[in-house]
Amino acid sequence: MSRYIVSNPKKVGSAPGTLVHIGNKFKEKSEITLIQYNNETEETLHTHNIDKCFSNFNDEKVRWLNIEGLQDISIIEKIGKQFKLHPLLLEDILNTGQRAKIDDYDNYIFIVLKVLTYNKDLKKIKSEQVSFVFIDNCIISFQERDIGVFDNVKNRIKVSNGNIRKLSADYLLYTLIDAIVDSYFVMLENFGNKIDFVEDQLINKPEKGILKSIHNLKREMLFLRNCIWPLREVVSILIRGDNSHFTENTIVYLRDVYDHIIQIIDTIEVYRDMLSGMLDTYLSSISNKTNDVMKVLTIISTIFIPITFLAGVYGMNFKYIPELELPYGYGFFWVIVVIITLLMVRYFKKKMWI
Amino acid sequence: MSRYIVSNPKKVGSAPGTLVHIGNKFKEKSEITLIQYNNETEETLHTHNIDKCFSNFNDEKVRWLNIEGLQDISIIEKIGKQFKLHPLLLEDILNTGQRAKIDDYDNYIFIVLKVLTYNKDLKKIKSEQVSFVFIDNCIISFQERDIGVFDNVKNRIKVSNGNIRKLSADYLLYTLIDAIVDSYFVMLENFGNKIDFVEDQLINKPEKGILKSIHNLKREMLFLRNCIWPLREVVSILIRGDNSHFTENTIVYLRDVYDHIIQIIDTIEVYRDMLSGMLDTYLSSISNKTNDVMKVLTIISTIFIPITFLAGVYGMNFKYIPELELPYGYGFFWVIVVIITLLMVRYFKKKMWI
Amino acid sequence: MSRYIVSNPKKVGSAPGTLVHIGNKFKEKSEITLIQYNNETEETLHTHNIDKCFSNFNDEKVRWLNIEGLQDISIIEKIGKQFKLHPLLLEDILNTGQRAKIDDYDNYIFIVLKVLTYNKDLKKIKSEQVSFVFIDNCIISFQERDIGVFDNVKNRIKVSNGNIRKLSADYLLYTLIDAIVDSYFVMLENFGNKIDFVEDQLINKPEKGILKSIHNLKREMLFLRNCIWPLREVVSILIRGDNSHFTENTIVYLRDVYDHIIQIIDTIEVYRDMLSGMLDTYLSSISNKTNDVMKVLTIISTIFIPITFLAGVYGMNFKYIPELELPYGYGFFWVIVVIITLLMVRYFKKKMWI
Amino acid sequence: MSRYIVSNPKKVGSAPGTLVHIGNKFKEKSEITLIQYNNETEETLHTHNIDKCFSNFNDEKVRWLNIEGLQDISIIEKIGKQFKLHPLLLEDILNTGQRAKIDDYDNYIFIVLKVLTYNKDLKKIKSEQVSFVFIDNCIISFQERDIGVFDNVKNRIKVSNGNIRKLSADYLLYTLIDAIVDSYFVMLENFGNKIDFVEDQLINKPEKGILKSIHNLKREMLFLRNCIWPLREVVSILIRGDNSHFTENTIVYLRDVYDHIIQIIDTIEVYRDMLSGMLDTYLSSISNKTNDVMKVLTIISTIFIPITFLAGVYGMNFKYIPELELPYGYGFFWVIVVIITLLMVRYFKKKMWI
Amino acid sequence: MSRYIVSNPKKVGSAPGTLVHIGNKFKEKSEITLIQYNNETEETLHTHNIDKCFSNFNDEKVRWLNIEGLQDISIIEKIGKQFKLHPLLLEDILNTGQRAKIDDYDNYIFIVLKVLTYNKDLKKIKSEQVSFVFIDNCIISFQERDIGVFDNVKNRIKVSNGNIRKLSADYLLYTLIDAIVDSYFVMLENFGNKIDFVEDQLINKPEKGILKSIHNLKREMLFLRNCIWPLREVVSILIRGDNSHFTENTIVYLRDVYDHIIQIIDTIEVYRDMLSGMLDTYLSSISNKTNDVMKVLTIISTIFIPITFLAGVYGMNFKYIPELELPYGYGFFWVIVVIITLLMVRYFKKKMWI
Repeated sequence: MSRYIVSNPKKVGSAPGTLVHIGNKFKEKSEITLIQYNNETEETLHTHNIDKCFSNFNDEKVRWLNIEGLQDISIIEKIGKQFKLHPLLLEDILNTGQRAKIDDYDNYIFIVLKVLTYNKDLKKIKSEQVSFVFIDNCIISFQERDIGVFDNVKNRIKVSNGNIRKLSADYLLYTLIDAIVDSYFVMLENFGNKIDFVEDQLINKPEKGILKSIHNLKREMLFLRNCIWPLREVVSILIRGDNSHFTENTIVYLRDVYDHIIQIIDTIEVYRDMLSGMLDTYLSSISNKTNDVMKVLTIISTIFIPITFLAGVYGMNFKYIPELELPYGYGFFWVIVVIITLLMVRYFKKKMWI
Repeated sequence: MSRYIVSNPKKVGSAPGTLVHIGNKFKEKSEITLIQYNNETEETLHTHNIDKCFSNFNDEKVRWLNIEGLQDISIIEKIGKQFKLHPLLLEDILNTGQRAKIDDYDNYIFIVLKVLTYNKDLKKIKSEQVSFVFIDNCIISFQERDIGVFDNVKNRIKVSNGNIRKLSADYLLYTLIDAIVDSYFVMLENFGNKIDFVEDQLINKPEKGILKSIHNLKREMLFLRNCIWPLREVVSILIRGDNSHFTENTIVYLRDVYDHIIQIIDTIEVYRDMLSGMLDTYLSSISNKTNDVMKVLTIISTIFIPITFLAGVYGMNFKYIPELELPYGYGFFWVIVVIITLLMVRYFKKKMWI
Repeated sequence: MSRYIVSNPKKVGSAPGTLVHIGNKFKEKSEITLIQYNNETEETLHTHNIDKCFSNFNDEKVRWLNIEGLQDISIIEKIGKQFKLHPLLLEDILNTGQRAKIDDYDNYIFIVLKVLTYNKDLKKIKSEQVSFVFIDNCIISFQERDIGVFDNVKNRIKVSNGNIRKLSADYLLYTLIDAIVDSYFVMLENFGNKIDFVEDQLINKPEKGILKSIHNLKREMLFLRNCIWPLREVVSILIRGDNSHFTENTIVYLRDVYDHIIQIIDTIEVYRDMLSGMLDTYLSSISNKTNDVMKVLTIISTIFIPITFLAGVYGMNFKYIPELELPYGYGFFWVIVVIITLLMVRYFKKKMWI
Repeated sequence: MSRYIVSNPKKVGSAPGTLVHIGNKFKEKSEITLIQYNNETEETLHTHNIDKCFSNFNDEKVRWLNIEGLQDISIIEKIGKQFKLHPLLLEDILNTGQRAKIDDYDNYIFIVLKVLTYNKDLKKIKSEQVSFVFIDNCIISFQERDIGVFDNVKNRIKVSNGNIRKLSADYLLYTLIDAIVDSYFVMLENFGNKIDFVEDQLINKPEKGILKSIHNLKREMLFLRNCIWPLREVVSILIRGDNSHFTENTIVYLRDVYDHIIQIIDTIEVYRDMLSGMLDTYLSSISNKTNDVMKVLTIISTIFIPITFLAGVYGMNFKYIPELELPYGYGFFWVIVVIITLLMVRYFKKKMWI
Repeated sequence: MSRYIVSNPKKVGSAPGTLVHIGNKFKEKSEITLIQYNNETEETLHTHNIDKCFSNFNDEKVRWLNIEGLQDISIIEKIGKQFKLHPLLLEDILNTGQRAKIDDYDNYIFIVLKVLTYNKDLKKIKSEQVSFVFIDNCIISFQERDIGVFDNVKNRIKVSNGNIRKLSADYLLYTLIDAIVDSYFVMLENFGNKIDFVEDQLINKPEKGILKSIHNLKREMLFLRNCIWPLREVVSILIRGDNSHFTENTIVYLRDVYDHIIQIIDTIEVYRDMLSGMLDTYLSSISNKTNDVMKVLTIISTIFIPITFLAGVYGMNFKYIPELELPYGYGFFWVIVVIITLLMVRYFKKKMWI
């Protein structure tokens, strides 16, 4: 249940802007990485001390400040003070139960996204929150822990692959969002494999537990849709360009991200439809099984009930039953039994029951 | 039914603006609390006499006039006269069957909200109406009875926790709305637990009564949705800032409330989906039970009907039945019976019926 | 069927504006009431002669001309001529198969509403059409027959209850619309009682006829929704105030009516949902009954089939069956029968079939 | 299938504007009627020669050129040349698989409608295309064949019934559209009768074939909806009056047509709902029948299986069975049989199975 | 699954604008065709060398550069350089997992469409991507392989059929889009035949496998809808004429294409409805079969169980059973058996079970 509602009872009614980290603690200390680059040079600083970052700031380069781990509230507070961020924004960074959203605070924008991974063991989609603040020529990203989704981007900056080093911070932000959206495809593919697996099971060996599996998958799908629908809105707001944070050039790239999100949403709809189809199949498979059981009962009963009656007749104690006196009476009896049986079998064959 | 329609037959066709309290009477006397504060000082007045409040009014402070209990219509009337409120507004305060709504009367706004609590005994969501009038630098709140949802806010004002004492009445109004929305999370969590409980029951011991439970939960969910959907609109109207009552600063906070409401609506949709899934599970569990019953019948019948026939055969009175004369005939009979039984059992095992 | 389509085959393709009364004739003669009032005085004129009304017109008062009974087309025609109304408007008054609608003819507006009553005997919602023309300071209302829905308003004018006598015709029109919407609550309550009754029946004694009852209720609900949805639009058009016919003051009251309509629509949705739930319950009750029947059959068969086989065995005529010779053979037989029966009963108890 | 897609494979990829008649050929020659009228005079010309019409044109009168039969492409081409119509428009006239639509070509408008008739024998709704070109003071209508839907209008022009002769061509166009919409009511009534008929059958004698009937009706309903929904848009475009072709006066009348279309759409929704209800009823009737069959089997089995066992007991060959020796043993046996039977019958009565 | 998500894991997180061909490779070398024409002349150049095309460019003619086969990335790169196209555009051409879309890059527009064909053997709808760049007076089209859908257009240019040679490149682009949309009709017809085939099968010989067939068809339908819905948007954007690339004249033709797309979408909805109906039919056919099996069992049991009891009675060994002594006792027994059987048969006939 906890994925669906994240409410910290302690927080109810407390003053807004109170900084409490709501979510999992993964590490003892937050990892801070500061990457500063321009077309010529690139420098990376790993530290646990946020003040060291501030003193190293080079305003003439594109700066990417990446925080991994949210348990150390003092870091968040210091960043808030340094960049004069709104207290609610800081609260949203820490409360990891947010939907994807974009808040435009005139001179900076704040974006919340979800990194989604499909955990095959728990059969659950896990969601981790990544927040971005885009202020001046600087991107600050906050992750609950290192999930590797940005490794590729870090690498590209280092080796100056593509245009990334030539362009400004808005392009970097696009690149980070793109990396997250790309990771959805991998997750969807894993999820699709799980659906295929359950479908195979359904066709080959439908068991009672499968209904639960299908409903679980449906619920994950709903969770996914709830995660991704707001993302669509976020990116569409960025594209509309009401804000002056993004250059024309980057908006073209964001349109590409938007197309990908629509593709993902289409895929989710297809999956939902497949799961509904699987439910139908399961329910009709129960009916079919009842039908099969009934047929066996009916075939056995229909063959044996008449001949049992016949045996009963010749077990009667009437004084005079002519057949009983016949020399081959017993033989005749078996002949009749065989004939009745054959007729019945033929009838069932015609009805395609056997 | 009474929760769904609140119509006082006496009222039908009567003049609008007639003040009649429609709803439950909880206490004999209405409790009146007047809290006035600014950044430096805070004073609280508890009384049953509304006139005393008026005479204590300090226009230079933020004033919060809180009325608990609506049965004393004269209080409402006096407030209406003092602040020159529209008669329909007063009527709406008293008629507790309103939807959440916001009415903008040029120089004051009127907001109706619902406090929702899940009553575990009655298995019903109870809704209590809270109305706000925001006029000048004063918030007037009307509750049916003290439900404790504002205790935290009162406390924060007292100890000057957060910004509340530094800001004006619109921020106070936000704080009160926020407290109500926060209380929904608690209620949803209780409700979620109930759903989990019924789901466990469904899987472990599905009884006929469970269908009624599921439908009850679905109906509560619908009730909830009908309560919360209009709230979303209310807050979105406040955010849009068409009215000049709210400062830019407070609107940022209201956007946060809006995000919470969307989260709640998402949760409700997930719950509805879960309940639909539980209905499917219940219906398929009936089919499965029929199937099981059928299997037992078929297994017993299919084993015994053939051997009963055999016993019938050797109970016949034909003159000459060779088997009857055999010394070990009876023994052979049992051997055949055992063989038939084993074959049948093997067949059922292959079909996975046992 | 006739409620759903009202098409007079004679009319097909005939010239528009041809006045033919389509609907039920309730009385021989139309009742005409002219009520004229201002803050000081009020006078009422009952007549069958429309010309008498025209000659009594007092332009300085608010005039309410109420026509009960539409069969006398000449009255409609005379009113049309007197007020220079559009022929299509007159046609719409007479053709009682209209949806609720508002037509704005620059210097007058035309409103069609439905008065809905639940006829408990026919188990049908009956709809009667009421049309209003609002021109200058005059309201003309047309009813198929006197349905008492305006009695209260007439009374209020007489005793000068509320503001009605102080305000102009637009407030009168609001009052009349309000009276109609109020009557829906009564009707919904009756309908809700019927739903409760059928639900009780469903739980206590589900019979085949109940499916028809549920579908009837669903159809009535659909009919209701089709009646009330357009009403919502009508009132929302009035509120939007694109027309200059309504004062700011009256629009505040109309907003109240709008809230009521939304409440009614919410209630209808809840009812529809309840009826869908009842359908599910009915269908699963059939499955449950089949299940119960199966259980009885299976219990009886499973107990008696094995012991019948045993009786058959000892009815065989084999030369040598040792048990038959035992002195207490017959007693042992009964002991075995009792043991088998007890084992079976225990098995069924474990399976919770008995 | 052919009603749903009309694609001429020959046309695929061919140049647009190529005139090929796609649809049924009903007659050898196209019937051309030219009706010209003003308030004073009216003249009608029947011919097969379109040039004769052109030479008779009287620009000062309202002209209605009606073409029945589309197989003679040269007529269409000549009209196209005479009025300088767009080639795509001519193509649309001939390709009778169009949806209802309106195309506004600056100085003329083109409207495509469908005349729908319910063929009781084929149990299908047949659709025939009628196209209108409204240019200057002239209406040109194209029909696949004479379907009599305009007879009434022709008559009204002749006898100068209503305003038609006093008004210009836009009113004539309205009249023609109105005639088509009126014809839908007749068709819906026929369709409604068919639904009633199937519903009676369903209640009195539900056979397997009835499922097909219901699905057929549903499909016809969907076809109908697809036909009528675009019509609604067409008329709403006309009403919005973005085009200068219609006078204020005619738009009032078109609003009336619009109301009728909404009524028709409401009726279609009611029908769809009824058909869904009938599906439920059918499916539950199958379950009920299975239930009935089960009950008969269970009653018979439950009565006879125990007493058959008893008979088996007294057919056993144990040396000493005391009951067999009793003088009234056989009588006692029957007494017990009767008692068991009565108990069982009582049990079934209590369970309301008989 | 691969049709639903096209994600190249290698690409995840890589720099945008990296050109990698994602999709099937059909041929070794890309075929390049350059067609240049005006009203007087037309010249066609087939080559594998894109530079040869560039050197042959005649800016005063309409140019259509058609690339078949996307595996040779250098061609795409050269075109991109020659026309100064955006790198993302080139990426989209190569990544054949796009939805239909239109991207407007100020001085050129980029359109992606899908050619859909129904593969009867695989029972799958295959989709191939066609991209268009419309720049200056030049159309560049990119296909995965030659699918013949443009043959007709090439031919029309050659023989100067219709207006195509007289008009500029926007009309050529319309013609190409039209050719693709026309090809959908053929595909839908094939698909419709498949649905008819499965429906026949369902009615005549419903087997378990048919459920899978129906769900497959439903999934194809969903795939189709996902393909065609975005196309609708593409064409509606073109019609709206926000871009200056299209002349008024061509927009009239595009409106025609839009109508066709709406027709296709309507057809898809009808198909989806038919498939849902077929699911209902299948499920009720299982219930009907169970019913039939039950009837056979019940008939046989109900006839034989009572007479078997009777035979059991006269097999009892009571000392004194008067019937056994009767001379015609055995005959009477058979008479009673026949009477019971006849009564039962009559009862079943009345119940319409046989």
